[in-house]
Amino acid sequence: MERIEPKTLKGFRDYLPKDQIARQAMLEKIRQVFERFGFEPLETPVLEYRETLTGKYGDEGEKLLYSFKDQGERDVAMRYDLTVPLARVVAQYQNELPRPFKRYQIAPVWRADKPQKGRYREFYQCDADIVGAPVGIADAECIAVTEQILLALGIRKFAIKVNNRKILNAIIEAAGVQAARVNVAIREIDKLDKVGDEQVAKELAAAAGLSAQKASGLVQAVSEKISSISRLKAFMDSKGLSGAEAAQGLTEMEQVSAAAQGLGVKNMVIDLSLARGLDYYTSTVFEAVITSSPEARSFGSVAGAGRYDSLMQLFAGRDMPAVGMSVGIDRLYEVMQVLGLVKKSNVVDVLILNMGSQFQPDYLQMLGQLRSAGINSEVYYQDADLKKQFDFAEAKSIPFAIIYGDKEADKKRITLRDLRTRKQKTLKRAGMAAAVKKTLEGEARG
Amino acid sequence: MERIEPKTLKGFRDYLPKDQIARQAMLEKIRQVFERFGFEPLETPVLEYRETLTGKYGDEGEKLLYSFKDQGERDVAMRYDLTVPLARVVAQYQNELPRPFKRYQIAPVWRADKPQKGRYREFYQCDADIVGAPVGIADAECIAVTEQILLALGIRKFAIKVNNRKILNAIIEAAGVQAARVNVAIREIDKLDKVGDEQVAKELAAAAGLSAQKASGLVQAVSEKISSISRLKAFMDSKGLSGAEAAQGLTEMEQVSAAAQGLGVKNMVIDLSLARGLDYYTSTVFEAVITSSPEARSFGSVAGAGRYDSLMQLFAGRDMPAVGMSVGIDRLYEVMQVLGLVKKSNVVDVLILNMGSQFQPDYLQMLGQLRSAGINSEVYYQDADLKKQFDFAEAKSIPFAIIYGDKEADKKRITLRDLRTRKQKTLKRAGMAAAVKKTLEGEARG
Repeated sequence: MERIEPKTLKGFRDYLPKDQIARQAMLEKIRQVFERFGFEPLETPVLEYRETLTGKYGDEGEKLLYSFKDQGERDVAMRYDLTVPLARVVAQYQNELPRPFKRYQIAPVWRADKPQKGRYREFYQCDADIVGAPVGIADAECIAVTEQILLALGIRKFAIKVNNRKILNAIIEAAGVQAARVNVAIREIDKLDKVGDEQVAKELAAAAGLSAQKASGLVQAVSEKISSISRLKAFMDSKGLSGAEAAQGLTEMEQVSAAAQGLGVKNMVIDLSLARGLDYYTSTVFEAVITSSPEARSFGSVAGAGRYDSLMQLFAGRDMPAVGMSVGIDRLYEVMQVLGLVKKSNVVDVLILNMGSQFQPDYLQMLGQLRSAGINSEVYYQDADLKKQFDFAEAKSIPFAIIYGDKEADKKRITLRDLRTRKQKTLKRAGMAAAVKKTLEGEARG
Repeated sequence: MERIEPKTLKGFRDYLPKDQIARQAMLEKIRQVFERFGFEPLETPVLEYRETLTGKYGDEGEKLLYSFKDQGERDVAMRYDLTVPLARVVAQYQNELPRPFKRYQIAPVWRADKPQKGRYREFYQCDADIVGAPVGIADAECIAVTEQILLALGIRKFAIKVNNRKILNAIIEAAGVQAARVNVAIREIDKLDKVGDEQVAKELAAAAGLSAQKASGLVQAVSEKISSISRLKAFMDSKGLSGAEAAQGLTEMEQVSAAAQGLGVKNMVIDLSLARGLDYYTSTVFEAVITSSPEARSFGSVAGAGRYDSLMQLFAGRDMPAVGMSVGIDRLYEVMQVLGLVKKSNVVDVLILNMGSQFQPDYLQMLGQLRSAGINSEVYYQDADLKKQFDFAEAKSIPFAIIYGDKEADKKRITLRDLRTRKQKTLKRAGMAAAVKKTLEGEARG
């Protein structure tokens, strides 16, 4: 048979064990936090009816959909995000699901985007959403779960910027932007972090039909530093933002802020310039930025989302309040690498070196003992030279080796060698598993 | 916007939280056992170049491939199994991977098969393989990991049938089947469990060109009860199975059996009729059957696989010894349901009931305390009637509720109610999280 060249599609990745071990450890921590907050796991198929996904992502998004006809001539498409499948599920199983429905889903999605640094055609989304709860504690929980995830991953310095779309809309309208152009203005304001004040003011003027002065006044207004809800009130009063929408936005912000504080959230800041690009947000929006270093900060938002009370109606046929959060797994993993927080890269803690096939029964017995004690361990299968065996241990980042050859057999002992420091100690063979476990536990604490 | 009917494609499933919680718990246990044995996780893309997958699964298999042209007119296909992607990865990253390479992968695959009871178009495979190790300990580890997985899932009565293709081939050839028809005969013998001796003998005669007598002699030979390696030797002597292939098969079986015993495997039995349908097995084959009850047994094999030393050459361009095992997740989950072993269906352990919005700050504070203590908990967001709140708890199978209303506030206490037994106790509000944790831990032990 002809040999086929082994290769991966552009924009797609293999996660070899080194990376996959670390990624899996990260996702496991996130999952634990989601569950601590009462979010339950949901899994939906990779393929959906094409019509389930079309009309949700705009013209640009739709072009990126992987879709095709299946063997039964059905139009099908690969999952593009986790939000539309959630909306479908909520409508499809209305009577079976708890209400409010709190679910998380961590799963890959596909977009036939132009691959570039940090952008892939297959990537993971990691979402938690609450469907069926009005603004208030639910929003605060999404903010609190974001904070707890970052803390669980070892990140200490970060800010969770919070805003409310109703307040932002009111500020934009007060600056003279017509209602029909508010979303255009929001998309410009969303670029503030990336392109800076002047550029945004210029583009705002052009896109939203404002004078240069009004445009830069608007940029200034949303850039106002607001340190508390009472300051927000004062600011809104000073700007004459007293219409129904502004007042409603302020009330919502107060409720969310009070609930977040009640839940012990420490890293929340009000940021009136926070827009979050998507059109469908209706109220609370938030995002997290890591501030440990300028480099970490330069990655931008690593998590965030907001409230989208109308999206659910596409399938359910009626409005349904919903709020969610999403972790940018790939970006977060990269920042964690920069910060030196990606540590776990081994699965195996102990390798029994193979000092000769005459010891095979001993090795297998010890292996049984180690594994019964809950220690991830293996034996080098063949009687190979030690260099090869150490290379194997290094390739798998195995920290400890057990040596058991003639010398050890004579004394009914084993040698436990730390492969990083090259220090070793001798242990009685009987009860060796417990002693090894103690060493490993000391390690985990240390 | 027109309402879209929410529906799932035929042959595809949503896993709602109830099922997904239990499935996830099962997969997590399996993952732990894989890692205990030194298998590392690998993840490969859902989409591959079509040519990577074609020519591997036979004509029938190929028809089931979900394939299409992507936006760049590339021929792509969805993953059909986890073995071919493994072969690609091993060839593609030859110099980066440890050798032997022990990996596991738990992931969905897609086959456009006719959906029927227990057969889906999207289903999970759960594989562990060892590439680059010859017959011996590696095969025994695959058998041992199968045993440990079943034990970890609470299954006590099962048998792991083991055979060697070389021995089976020798028996078949000794019965007069020509070399070219051995695989045909193997596929017939593979049906013994399902259709019985007589039917197999009849079809063997037709398909493999044997007389009725020789065919039933062959069925009898492979059905021989063999209780040990020494009995196997005696049986093979008695049948005159002394050719090179038979002798090699016997040696391999001895090595694998000795290593499995060394690893403490308890439930292995020799079964000369075990064939495992696939053509590519070259040596050890095995499968696990649960024997707790006739019903459990009727599900057939829940795990198994074997050694396939030639498959890897498709990409690597040369033979590479490989052995693996695969857990039939869906079937295993069904058997576990039958046996009452699927227990976990809740994520949340404590619901704080909402007795009035005036208590919101108290609820949020308590929630912070419970979560800090590692307790999965939530508050009912709104001040709704208690019936609704209890229904919510029931929908999520939450075992405990905390009640904190006027009465409790007065006394600085909380009421902890067991929602299953309706028994309740009073706890001091200060330090309440620790007391609740104790109750939950008692529960987990009990």
